[in-house]
Amino acid sequence: MRLQDIQAKLGGEAIGEAAEPLTGVGTLEAGRAGQVTFLANPRYRAQLKTTRASAVIVGENDRDATPLPRIVAANPYAYFARVAQLFEAPRKAQAGVHASALVHAGAVLHPSARVDEFASVAEGAVIGAHAWVGAGCVIGEGARVGEYTRLMPRVTVYARCEIGRRGLIHSGVVIGADGFGFAPDFRDDGGAWVKIPQTGRVIIGDDCEIGANSTIDRGAIEDTVIGNDVKIDNQVQIGHNCTVGDHTVISGCTGIAGSTRIGRRVMMGGASGAIGHLSICDGAVVSAMTLVTKSITEPGMVTGSLPHMKHADWLKNIVHVRRLDDLANAIKKGKS
Amino acid sequence: MRLQDIQAKLGGEAIGEAAEPLTGVGTLEAGRAGQVTFLANPRYRAQLKTTRASAVIVGENDRDATPLPRIVAANPYAYFARVAQLFEAPRKAQAGVHASALVHAGAVLHPSARVDEFASVAEGAVIGAHAWVGAGCVIGEGARVGEYTRLMPRVTVYARCEIGRRGLIHSGVVIGADGFGFAPDFRDDGGAWVKIPQTGRVIIGDDCEIGANSTIDRGAIEDTVIGNDVKIDNQVQIGHNCTVGDHTVISGCTGIAGSTRIGRRVMMGGASGAIGHLSICDGAVVSAMTLVTKSITEPGMVTGSLPHMKHADWLKNIVHVRRLDDLANAIKKGKS
Amino acid sequence: MRLQDIQAKLGGEAIGEAAEPLTGVGTLEAGRAGQVTFLANPRYRAQLKTTRASAVIVGENDRDATPLPRIVAANPYAYFARVAQLFEAPRKAQAGVHASALVHAGAVLHPSARVDEFASVAEGAVIGAHAWVGAGCVIGEGARVGEYTRLMPRVTVYARCEIGRRGLIHSGVVIGADGFGFAPDFRDDGGAWVKIPQTGRVIIGDDCEIGANSTIDRGAIEDTVIGNDVKIDNQVQIGHNCTVGDHTVISGCTGIAGSTRIGRRVMMGGASGAIGHLSICDGAVVSAMTLVTKSITEPGMVTGSLPHMKHADWLKNIVHVRRLDDLANAIKKGKS
Repeated sequence: MRLQDIQAKLGGEAIGEAAEPLTGVGTLEAGRAGQVTFLANPRYRAQLKTTRASAVIVGENDRDATPLPRIVAANPYAYFARVAQLFEAPRKAQAGVHASALVHAGAVLHPSARVDEFASVAEGAVIGAHAWVGAGCVIGEGARVGEYTRLMPRVTVYARCEIGRRGLIHSGVVIGADGFGFAPDFRDDGGAWVKIPQTGRVIIGDDCEIGANSTIDRGAIEDTVIGNDVKIDNQVQIGHNCTVGDHTVISGCTGIAGSTRIGRRVMMGGASGAIGHLSICDGAVVSAMTLVTKSITEPGMVTGSLPHMKHADWLKNIVHVRRLDDLANAIKKGKS
Repeated sequence: MRLQDIQAKLGGEAIGEAAEPLTGVGTLEAGRAGQVTFLANPRYRAQLKTTRASAVIVGENDRDATPLPRIVAANPYAYFARVAQLFEAPRKAQAGVHASALVHAGAVLHPSARVDEFASVAEGAVIGAHAWVGAGCVIGEGARVGEYTRLMPRVTVYARCEIGRRGLIHSGVVIGADGFGFAPDFRDDGGAWVKIPQTGRVIIGDDCEIGANSTIDRGAIEDTVIGNDVKIDNQVQIGHNCTVGDHTVISGCTGIAGSTRIGRRVMMGGASGAIGHLSICDGAVVSAMTLVTKSITEPGMVTGSLPHMKHADWLKNIVHVRRLDDLANAIKKGKS
Repeated sequence: MRLQDIQAKLGGEAIGEAAEPLTGVGTLEAGRAGQVTFLANPRYRAQLKTTRASAVIVGENDRDATPLPRIVAANPYAYFARVAQLFEAPRKAQAGVHASALVHAGAVLHPSARVDEFASVAEGAVIGAHAWVGAGCVIGEGARVGEYTRLMPRVTVYARCEIGRRGLIHSGVVIGADGFGFAPDFRDDGGAWVKIPQTGRVIIGDDCEIGANSTIDRGAIEDTVIGNDVKIDNQVQIGHNCTVGDHTVISGCTGIAGSTRIGRRVMMGGASGAIGHLSICDGAVVSAMTLVTKSITEPGMVTGSLPHMKHADWLKNIVHVRRLDDLANAIKKGKS
């Protein structure tokens, strides 16, 4: 592949041509001959001088920042992503059910779908065209996997849950386990928790990616609903009856309690959280390790983490947090 | 089913009768004809006027708050939970071992137990009456699964661990992996961590539910012990040698370090935590994203999270946390 | 086994001899006749008087602190760990591939390796001598498992990832899922996230242990690299392109964002975190639930958690965090 070929496929303006055939992508710092790299963050501009990559994708502002063969693109990072996709061997599901897989009677598989070894597809489940169910996956009764969606090995989809088209679900994901719902029924002389049957579903839109070991619980009565083009990182937990809007991104280790309504194009930072029954509006950005305890009603970033300090400094300072009210009162009195 | 039938089974006082047969449960907000709903939280009382559900469960205080056919119950939420259970199709384990499952010689299965496809039950394991081992589960040597306990697909129970009766263990749960125990053995010229063999077990009581992808480690020498009627949400981690008392509830993403002793009817909020070797007394409530660093000795709620604020406000304010000791000293001087 | 036998194998100085054969290890508090215990933490010295264990490992300082048969060792905790290992039945992988396992054509298994039921080993994968692939594991194309490494049941190793020698990987671990990388490509009239193909690998050194349900993502372009003798607890998430130095320990529920560089002998506390693209130097210690937001450049402990308090106190005090800047200004004015 040459720079001209890339331009022909993806647009942009090619300036110069790589001396050697292009065989893949690399970083500015570690890129080698034959690789295409990119500059999106001006912080790394100096690396343009030292990179050994053969070509680079740059933005309009950097059009003349390098003599390297280059493509000028409006969004160099997204352009680079598409270039990387060009170099990726397409992983098309080879149609067919492995001899060791178990497709229960009453499951409906499109002839172009693929089901790998030790996977199990229950009665009434529907696997769409070109969908790929990886090794050891378990697809519950009446669940649906949309066309071109790929489940990596060892994914569980509980009964009646649905995943849209072109999704990518990583290993260990559990879709549709019971939400955490119990009614307390204690009296002085005993009692116990009474389980609320979780009879809703999980409905996931198109073009979603869900990271390894993440979990999305089914709704208690109504459904848990994930929009389109939602990207969820690893080890994320989404409670029952949440809704997540289109294009929202949720970073790893985040926990969303039940009935939270997350808008469109929200960004939840790593290990962030939301207590339940609140709303996070479109365009909100929640910083890492920040707990959302009240609804967020305007876009922009909210933060609630404590900066780390040397432990000795922390010991000295943090003790005053328990006395802030006294301090504030002392100041008030000092002023009056 | 009619309201009278429900009352006959579950008690309470029925007032009026639904116009149509009852076919399920719903929410006040989205309930439809044929559904039973409930009012437990007075905040939603206004919805009594607009609900399209056919009947409602209410508390004594709301006996006259609606003309709808209703049942008056002492605990309407718990009553509703039981109504919902009535409508749930009973999922009784159909006895039998799937042809593809692997039951090793020396495993003891009750004739009424069920073992699904690709599940593996090791030598010496005991599966109780009506227990249900889901697809792809792995039951280690000498492990025990109590009667009527259901393991959803892809659960691992390590060797010699025990789960009581009527439990529900969701997909991806790992019971009895090694606790995190290593002795440092470093010298100036090298060294390494020395593993402490984790030879204890995990013992789980009756009526417990454990959420998807949660993990409970086996004890180092003594056992990790979970009481009866303990409810654990998704992605919870419980370290080696912890004990958890009866009726305790642990919300999602919580991490409990080793040798923590948690009492009865404790409630751990989402993403909360406890550093090890401390006690949390009966009836304690730990807020979301709160880290317990000292033993809790009286019931009631403790909190240690930082409220989120606009990022600009956070930048302006949080910098002073590192200077709290200086501020406190300045106030002291100002007052002297 | 007698105390003399232990000394012969592990060194140290034996004083006295146990009255009965030694059959295992125990704690000071709960140890029984026939068990060996240890004292490493002086806090527990009083238990030396009451223990019913038959022998004890002590440090030089405690040589004369007990009349019990004992071994005096420089590092009693590490010595004890080795004693416990002596008593552990060696779990050698019995060579062989279970009849139900699926080893794809082109996989290379050492004759001494073991592959259990329902495990799947893809084309080009290499399983080393005495390695043990547990039930239900899925080993991707071209992945490598080093000699004597044991994968407990239900581990996924994605294509081309590598695990060194003598490793122990617990159930539910996912090695090499895609890193979380998407380029935003939104315009006023729409758009979507564009996936950055994750083409790097995960490379894990020798003597590593990885806890249940932990996840380590493959690199975007370059690799994610874990050193030797790294110990990772349960439910840890390590993002793409991270590097982790030798002997580092990462406690449960910790999340490390992408491209973080963690040094040697670092200790990450439970539920700690690091935002990406920063460095944590050799010997740094990060407290539990502390978020690292800037590079750490000197060894020692950093902390950034908020202590828990009674909820009423928290309500009263925490409100002032949002006003710290005002308080600080009030003090300044008061002083001027």
